Amino acid sequence: MSEFDLPRRLAAEALGTALLVATVVGSGIMAETLTKDVALALLGNTLPTGAILVVLITILGPISGAHFNPAVSLVFALRRELTPREALFYVAAQIAGGIAGTMLAHAMFALPLLDASLKMRTGGAQWLAEAVAAFGLVATILAGIRFNRAAVPWLVGLYITAAYWFTASTSFANPAVAIARSLTNTFSGIRPTDLPGFIAAETCGAIIALILMSWLLRESDKARAVLKEARP
Amino acid sequence: MSEFDLPRRLAAEALGTALLVATVVGSGIMAETLTKDVALALLGNTLPTGAILVVLITILGPISGAHFNPAVSLVFALRRELTPREALFYVAAQIAGGIAGTMLAHAMFALPLLDASLKMRTGGAQWLAEAVAAFGLVATILAGIRFNRAAVPWLVGLYITAAYWFTASTSFANPAVAIARSLTNTFSGIRPTDLPGFIAAETCGAIIALILMSWLLRESDKARAVLKEARP
Amino acid sequence: MSEFDLPRRLAAEALGTALLVATVVGSGIMAETLTKDVALALLGNTLPTGAILVVLITILGPISGAHFNPAVSLVFALRRELTPREALFYVAAQIAGGIAGTMLAHAMFALPLLDASLKMRTGGAQWLAEAVAAFGLVATILAGIRFNRAAVPWLVGLYITAAYWFTASTSFANPAVAIARSLTNTFSGIRPTDLPGFIAAETCGAIIALILMSWLLRESDKARAVLKEARP
Amino acid sequence: MSEFDLPRRLAAEALGTALLVATVVGSGIMAETLTKDVALALLGNTLPTGAILVVLITILGPISGAHFNPAVSLVFALRRELTPREALFYVAAQIAGGIAGTMLAHAMFALPLLDASLKMRTGGAQWLAEAVAAFGLVATILAGIRFNRAAVPWLVGLYITAAYWFTASTSFANPAVAIARSLTNTFSGIRPTDLPGFIAAETCGAIIALILMSWLLRESDKARAVLKEARP
Repeated sequence: MSEFDLPRRLAAEALGTALLVATVVGSGIMAETLTKDVALALLGNTLPTGAILVVLITILGPISGAHFNPAVSLVFALRRELTPREALFYVAAQIAGGIAGTMLAHAMFALPLLDASLKMRTGGAQWLAEAVAAFGLVATILAGIRFNRAAVPWLVGLYITAAYWFTASTSFANPAVAIARSLTNTFSGIRPTDLPGFIAAETCGAIIALILMSWLLRESDKARAVLKEARP
Repeated sequence: MSEFDLPRRLAAEALGTALLVATVVGSGIMAETLTKDVALALLGNTLPTGAILVVLITILGPISGAHFNPAVSLVFALRRELTPREALFYVAAQIAGGIAGTMLAHAMFALPLLDASLKMRTGGAQWLAEAVAAFGLVATILAGIRFNRAAVPWLVGLYITAAYWFTASTSFANPAVAIARSLTNTFSGIRPTDLPGFIAAETCGAIIALILMSWLLRESDKARAVLKEARP
Repeated sequence: MSEFDLPRRLAAEALGTALLVATVVGSGIMAETLTKDVALALLGNTLPTGAILVVLITILGPISGAHFNPAVSLVFALRRELTPREALFYVAAQIAGGIAGTMLAHAMFALPLLDASLKMRTGGAQWLAEAVAAFGLVATILAGIRFNRAAVPWLVGLYITAAYWFTASTSFANPAVAIARSLTNTFSGIRPTDLPGFIAAETCGAIIALILMSWLLRESDKARAVLKEARP
Repeated sequence: MSEFDLPRRLAAEALGTALLVATVVGSGIMAETLTKDVALALLGNTLPTGAILVVLITILGPISGAHFNPAVSLVFALRRELTPREALFYVAAQIAGGIAGTMLAHAMFALPLLDASLKMRTGGAQWLAEAVAAFGLVATILAGIRFNRAAVPWLVGLYITAAYWFTASTSFANPAVAIARSLTNTFSGIRPTDLPGFIAAETCGAIIALILMSWLLRESDKARAVLKEARP
């Protein structure tokens, strides 16, 4: 479908996830270094993340689709827009890119390249928050593609801007990013032992969104009949 | 008019209002938890609300029109773009969705699901502010639809971003959201007893906007004559 | 040129200037009420102003051109896109609308409707800042119209967002808004005695921009020749 | 290629770089004057810079390409879209404009026109940060031009908004701006002796981006074959 061969699509997924994670982790380090007000630190974490998402999805989307997120690749595999083999390669590229992003952020801030997080993020409320975060992200992507494909980079950037604040977990919503963030003991970190709960919750939220949006976005019988006549 | 059947339109109204309220209430809880500076808390409440409005109106607008607001549905009913029956169903879906949104936000932050607000918001200045807030919202929507329909999600998101700060009431501008916010005793709450004043003021503001914009946006006689000739 | 008659164009100028001033003054009151940090207050003043400009220019621009600013109307009069008579009516509508905006903001915040400002804003550096602010605004509008008319609301909103911070005067850049702001003794006020200096500086900046951009944007001889041949 | 002659293209480069630097330096002065919280000051520096970039690239891009940056002009010279002579003139205009921008900001804030910075910015981590900043900027520009040219002003503005926070150096990413910022002893300054390291790092980052994106964006053989057939 893409005019780009698989190696370049995987490079785009790895590069995009790396820059996304470098932004999340790097801006978190910058923010907590500069202020003691945690709301201000979260703002200094939110705006760069939302902004870079618009950029990365616009410039890499035409190459790989700009998933940067195993939950999103899973949804596209379930929709048969990605083969299982492609999806596996995508996920591997995303995880590798994400970890490289953490290392890059640490190197720029003169920190040890990898450092397991001690920040506890667990419990039912946090898991619900992650499920909601991933639900909203996938719903935004699927309806955005249906109704206004050109706006998708903006929609995702704005959605994550909101979700950083309205979900109690600050909206990871992305298993590859969660893994990469388990390797930084800074503002945006998560304990490695808390990863399974987050990843499971994100996957559930994504699948629920796929099911709900399949119903909500389905062409109606009437519309299909009209379209059928219109198509020769 | 919409290719979508009524059940899905109502689902879109309920889902959109739920996510809107979850954002307003959730980001308010996040903000007041993280900082003691109320201006910063309001900023942490404003940006997510403006951002999610752009997203929700873009992705759900093609299904239901993305009112999420009984005052807006009333305006469209008065313009005969919604039957009275549809409008009633819309309002019911908005109120139900809004309350679900409060419950969702509370669940994510591990709070009791519903908790009546104690925050007093009443008096002539507050009611004027709400009337202005709803006036501006409806004027934005009606003129936006007339001149640049594709921009409406952005216009509404930006308008509310401004109105959170320039109206003394932080711009509820929405009876369904006001009801939902009466059930949270957090940053964004409003005492249930203060609801009637807010809802009456919002309705007045919306109707004044409808009247004023009907005059301001009316095609001139000359333009109508030109268009009449142009149309066979 | 506009399909709208003069009364409605003047109503659009008055309404737009009123809502613009209500936003500037109202968000200033809100901000200084909520925080002691002046940078945060300026941020709470900047974001609503930038946001409402995008909205107001989009929804009222097709009616009146959305000047909301005597310096801008002067520029269009000098470019002969507005007759002197129209320009005078525009300026009167802008000043009247601006004063109404201050009164509206005060009423919403339960303050006396009008209250002369005591905030000193004078001296060569401030005047330079106002000249630069108006220069940039007019340059943005003229080049925006030439190259990307649909983007002008965004360009003006973003320009003012920047100019609030990079000019030492926080960028009034607008004689009608300056007059309206002389009548509020709050965050955004200016002493009435400081008005002449501001208005003179803004007018100078606007005219310099008109001259410079006339040269910079002029079609080259070659381009004109090509266009001449292309036009029958 | 441009319909504009070289003098006007150079004027656009000088004017744009001057206003960009005036924004960076001026908003830095405003911010550090108004608050003691450094994160808030950085936010007050970030938002104006991102906003003015969108404006300047939109209004001056059609004249000169809106590089405002010797590293970007170098990349376009290497791509043979600028002759070496044009590139040299561009760089001279950018440096002269940048210095004028610092002087303008100082004059508006009633400071001595030029004042060498004492702020140390050096060492391997800072240089890595600058290389990453310039890499991301050039990658954004090249892919943006390829896939969505109209969005480039937004992409650059958003990229720099993010890079101010995720790079440890707050993302100068521009040798002409760095030179201009060495002449202000305020928030955004850099010691003149630290310039060579920054400029070298930025140049390296830009060239690496050119190489990587040339591979990533290359039309595939298949696509080229299809296009070849399509073109007569």
